[in-house]
Amino acid sequence: MASLNETHDPSLKSWVESANADSGFPIQNLPFASLRRAGSAEPFRLGVAIGDQVLDLSIARAHLPGAWGDALAAPRLNALMALGAEASSGLRLALSRALRQGSDAAGKLRAALVPVSQVEFGLPATIGDYTDFYTSIHHATNIGRLFRPDNPLLPNYKWVPIGYHGRASTINVSGTDFHRPRGQVLPPGAQQPVFGPSKRLDYELEMGVYIGEGNALGTPIPLSGAERHVAGLCLVNDWSARDIQAWEYQPLGPFLSKNFATTVSPWIVTLEALAPFRAAWDRPAEDGEPLPYLVGRTTRAEGALDIRLETLLETSRMAEAREAPHRLGLTSYRFAYWTVAQMVAHHTVNGCSLVPGDVLGTGTLSGPSPDALGSLAEITQGGKQSFRLPNGESRTFLEDHDRITFRGWCEKPGAARISLGEVSARVLPAAS
Amino acid sequence: MASLNETHDPSLKSWVESANADSGFPIQNLPFASLRRAGSAEPFRLGVAIGDQVLDLSIARAHLPGAWGDALAAPRLNALMALGAEASSGLRLALSRALRQGSDAAGKLRAALVPVSQVEFGLPATIGDYTDFYTSIHHATNIGRLFRPDNPLLPNYKWVPIGYHGRASTINVSGTDFHRPRGQVLPPGAQQPVFGPSKRLDYELEMGVYIGEGNALGTPIPLSGAERHVAGLCLVNDWSARDIQAWEYQPLGPFLSKNFATTVSPWIVTLEALAPFRAAWDRPAEDGEPLPYLVGRTTRAEGALDIRLETLLETSRMAEAREAPHRLGLTSYRFAYWTVAQMVAHHTVNGCSLVPGDVLGTGTLSGPSPDALGSLAEITQGGKQSFRLPNGESRTFLEDHDRITFRGWCEKPGAARISLGEVSARVLPAAS
Repeated sequence: MASLNETHDPSLKSWVESANADSGFPIQNLPFASLRRAGSAEPFRLGVAIGDQVLDLSIARAHLPGAWGDALAAPRLNALMALGAEASSGLRLALSRALRQGSDAAGKLRAALVPVSQVEFGLPATIGDYTDFYTSIHHATNIGRLFRPDNPLLPNYKWVPIGYHGRASTINVSGTDFHRPRGQVLPPGAQQPVFGPSKRLDYELEMGVYIGEGNALGTPIPLSGAERHVAGLCLVNDWSARDIQAWEYQPLGPFLSKNFATTVSPWIVTLEALAPFRAAWDRPAEDGEPLPYLVGRTTRAEGALDIRLETLLETSRMAEAREAPHRLGLTSYRFAYWTVAQMVAHHTVNGCSLVPGDVLGTGTLSGPSPDALGSLAEITQGGKQSFRLPNGESRTFLEDHDRITFRGWCEKPGAARISLGEVSARVLPAAS
Repeated sequence: MASLNETHDPSLKSWVESANADSGFPIQNLPFASLRRAGSAEPFRLGVAIGDQVLDLSIARAHLPGAWGDALAAPRLNALMALGAEASSGLRLALSRALRQGSDAAGKLRAALVPVSQVEFGLPATIGDYTDFYTSIHHATNIGRLFRPDNPLLPNYKWVPIGYHGRASTINVSGTDFHRPRGQVLPPGAQQPVFGPSKRLDYELEMGVYIGEGNALGTPIPLSGAERHVAGLCLVNDWSARDIQAWEYQPLGPFLSKNFATTVSPWIVTLEALAPFRAAWDRPAEDGEPLPYLVGRTTRAEGALDIRLETLLETSRMAEAREAPHRLGLTSYRFAYWTVAQMVAHHTVNGCSLVPGDVLGTGTLSGPSPDALGSLAEITQGGKQSFRLPNGESRTFLEDHDRITFRGWCEKPGAARISLGEVSARVLPAAS
């Protein structure tokens, strides 16, 4: 893991004043995104968040020490990711020094600042492959219980960081609304499927891990070096059509029930920024150790990350009435059964090559308590129990025009609060 | 489907003499690839096969009528694919006329010819997403019987063209050998998994469908227009580790058992070249019709393609003794239960966007007879019955240094023979 260094000093302040308020984007964060002036047709460019501003790297790069080549002038982060952990760490240090109070660079960099309120975001990277894991044992148990009440967890769960391939072309950035998917479903008790809009549309609260430097085909990444191949983390909503899923998923797994839309947050927060929020791995001692390739020297003590994750629902009635969104859940990434490093090591142990910009989803992140669930399938026990919202509406699954927003942040005494921003999108009616 | 036109005339001959012998690459074929001089570090460029020669499109494009922009000067086919079916058809016609006996262009194009024996191939397209289907009912039944002897086919099979997402980064072109994967397996009767090289390594005989023009997110491609989004077909070996697969695949499908290597043939043969080999759809009448979005006006009569598919095994002993490879199976793509157009229509019916260069695998293509099986899992009934080779060796699954080659071709009286070339790769020992 990345060790703490001068960039983590909680007393550091920036000459960008808004960064010194409790913005979640202090000088200790410095996440990356791809963006342009809102409503423009300009090419996208890279930026770093600092308070309520974005530092445009296509301009700022001339004033930053270090050899980034053209990586900072690119529209997306893949070239920077490919430079690896050393380069990423060096850039973070350069940015921290340049944006610090008293920096000589302040005068020159001020012209590279854009208010975040004036930008629109693109996908931060070209995503070659998207893999989705299943790392929350609470989620796996809750879902398994719907099918096998007495034996919810499959025998492989505590051995294998279960994962499967997702669709990369339908990943879009926060704010990209999408149409309710149509597809085949088998109505209860029916002998034949029918075709129509999904009636059991759900969200899945996940985190995404962007791969930095890749590995050659046939060359596994060992657990001890796995985090050096991670460019950073984001929030992911892996929208799911439960009725389509139930009918299609045997024997090869989910397909059309997932690949109509996946939404990611715009900011990529580095593992270095998250270093103060390492936490003990949540695998119970009585579960013993996994196979050696998944065992690391520091995994038990600090394999996890304490990132708070909140799910908010805003219905169209709430939006019209300007009511605050309703919280559907609050959990932490620290409850995951498999760590970031274990996902990378497992994915490559057979020789599979990862590529800069690839995304590994964590799978739905549910915590151990009923108020910490990451999907409606869990909250409503497979759609059997609807729930009521404060404004009198009720929900089982998502209705048209519902908006789901995830927020992520880290906080603890003695450290600057680190925001992962949010991922938000709205369900449009099925296309006719 | 593409109708027959002057490019299909079996009496057409080329001024490239070798194309007029029974090469499989006559002027009626004209498949595309990406290639360069063997052993060189030159950039890859596009080429078209004609007899035992390749026409270098980066040179020939100056002498071909038509507006291809820079698409013919690119290292891979994605830009040409994105131009769509009209452009592809126009290019085929231009090439057919330019390469015909008596063409005025012969003098200029001769300088753009390279012997195919002197080139090495690259991936013909950048593959954004790879989807693998399960379109052979014979394969699905054979595999299902290993688990459920009395009820081999799942209830969704005859309704849903089952598919799942594969890994794009580990697709390589024919000739790319790969290491036997290592991973977790649960030995028979064991309570805990062990880690090691796969002992049940298998091939899967498939075809691949390259997507041409894509579709916008949220806009399904109807069956009637589906083939206009297909750039062409290739051969695919979707290597599989059956022991890793058995332990990992519940509940989300195959993952590390597949993503260590997938191998594709270099040539992309267009649907237009294959038009003379359309065949009746092999779904039995008693199975009735699928849901309307999968029903097409001409599907029954000509939904299928009669492409012969042969599997050859060459062991290292056979290679050393210069013995001919041993045929493990011979089948035809016409036995598929779901057609090319149905794969495209199903994949997008939920709004999923396809992108030029994406590959849809057909899944393992087994025919109805015991000599037409597309995997060792079927030939050996899940590894229960080994078989003997003519040289006295025996096999259950693949051994180190075994080479598997698939060949594909179309032939019938009154039409020029069309080759799809071959896909071939060798199993290297597990990396230590």
